[in-house]
Amino acid sequence: MREKFQSDLDEIAGLLVDMADDVRAAMRRATSALLHSDAALAEDVIAGDDAIDARYHEVEERIYDVIALQAPVASDLRLVLTALHIAADLERMGDLADHVAKTALRRHPAPVVPEDLTGVVREMGDVADTMAAKLSAILSRPDAEVAAELERDDDAMDNLHRQLLATVIGGDWTHSVETAVDMALLGRFYERYGDHAVNTSQHIIFLVTGEVEAGPKTPI
Amino acid sequence: MREKFQSDLDEIAGLLVDMADDVRAAMRRATSALLHSDAALAEDVIAGDDAIDARYHEVEERIYDVIALQAPVASDLRLVLTALHIAADLERMGDLADHVAKTALRRHPAPVVPEDLTGVVREMGDVADTMAAKLSAILSRPDAEVAAELERDDDAMDNLHRQLLATVIGGDWTHSVETAVDMALLGRFYERYGDHAVNTSQHIIFLVTGEVEAGPKTPI
Repeated sequence: MREKFQSDLDEIAGLLVDMADDVRAAMRRATSALLHSDAALAEDVIAGDDAIDARYHEVEERIYDVIALQAPVASDLRLVLTALHIAADLERMGDLADHVAKTALRRHPAPVVPEDLTGVVREMGDVADTMAAKLSAILSRPDAEVAAELERDDDAMDNLHRQLLATVIGGDWTHSVETAVDMALLGRFYERYGDHAVNTSQHIIFLVTGEVEAGPKTPI
Repeated sequence: MREKFQSDLDEIAGLLVDMADDVRAAMRRATSALLHSDAALAEDVIAGDDAIDARYHEVEERIYDVIALQAPVASDLRLVLTALHIAADLERMGDLADHVAKTALRRHPAPVVPEDLTGVVREMGDVADTMAAKLSAILSRPDAEVAAELERDDDAMDNLHRQLLATVIGGDWTHSVETAVDMALLGRFYERYGDHAVNTSQHIIFLVTGEVEAGPKTPI
């Protein structure tokens, strides 16, 4: 029974790796669509969000089955329910990539991101990509050090977000109010993506070690 | 066993009613703090978010206990796991009220919301309050008609959100870029609050009737 449960958990972890890879690709492609005003790519990311949602429901069903069939208790139950939190956070990261892709379409064929902000947006996209790659890695092979790195990555993301907002509201803004609003919302999408990645990493550490690394932030 | 399970479910539903009442009060007070530049009230809402988070963790623990001790299967398991989704959505609604309260403090003692937008913000606050009140009501006494009303309330919220954004980016904006950004983010907080309320109502209908009303949107 215990062996079966462990193999079920491994299978669920495998599905979560797939989800992490999917939401990583979604945000990377959404950022690219945004910076290169690539409408076809943006449409593709938006269409792909349904597949991420479907995978989320698949993971949920798998978890329900394991609970129903194996009736895990105590720490085993907690482990499998933690996988539910991870799946929910990853699904939400997919939504945020979808929001970035939709923003990319907003002024097409004109670019959404003004020239002087492409640098900071590209950096936010890079940090998001790094964070999602680490989630996939620690889901495959637990590593508390890599999980701790995600906290630092998120600090970098928060700094970029502040930098972006400071440019928008700093008083030297030469672009339209519409562009200011787009940039503020866009900054928030990346910043939330980073927050969900940190929550996910804290849950993963618990899932793979059974130990709470640090108090997880609000899960969603 | 079945009776014990039902009484456990009822107890969990009671905790969820308390949470719904709390996140309703939080948003109502945050809106009031925002419109009356009431810093003390805003601080109070922000401090209160910890209590909402604590209650969320209490509900989670209670749900874990029920699963571990009663080992529900099939539809019973699904019911109790649905309560987890509801608690997570309500917790997130509390976060959004916290964000509104923080916005209220941003320019204190100057008002954040410009005179010409207080009407639409007040209406968004009213719709949010109506929606949260209905969640509390249908958690206490299931009513598919009231749950359906939440979808219409959310349409009203979306319309108000569009109206707010149209004013900000419509080209006649006379306030600062900073205020434009505040208003765009504020609009999003109310709009997301409404989305989570709709998700919650769909889960509640499932929790109390065991029937899926309509495909729930992405749960979080």
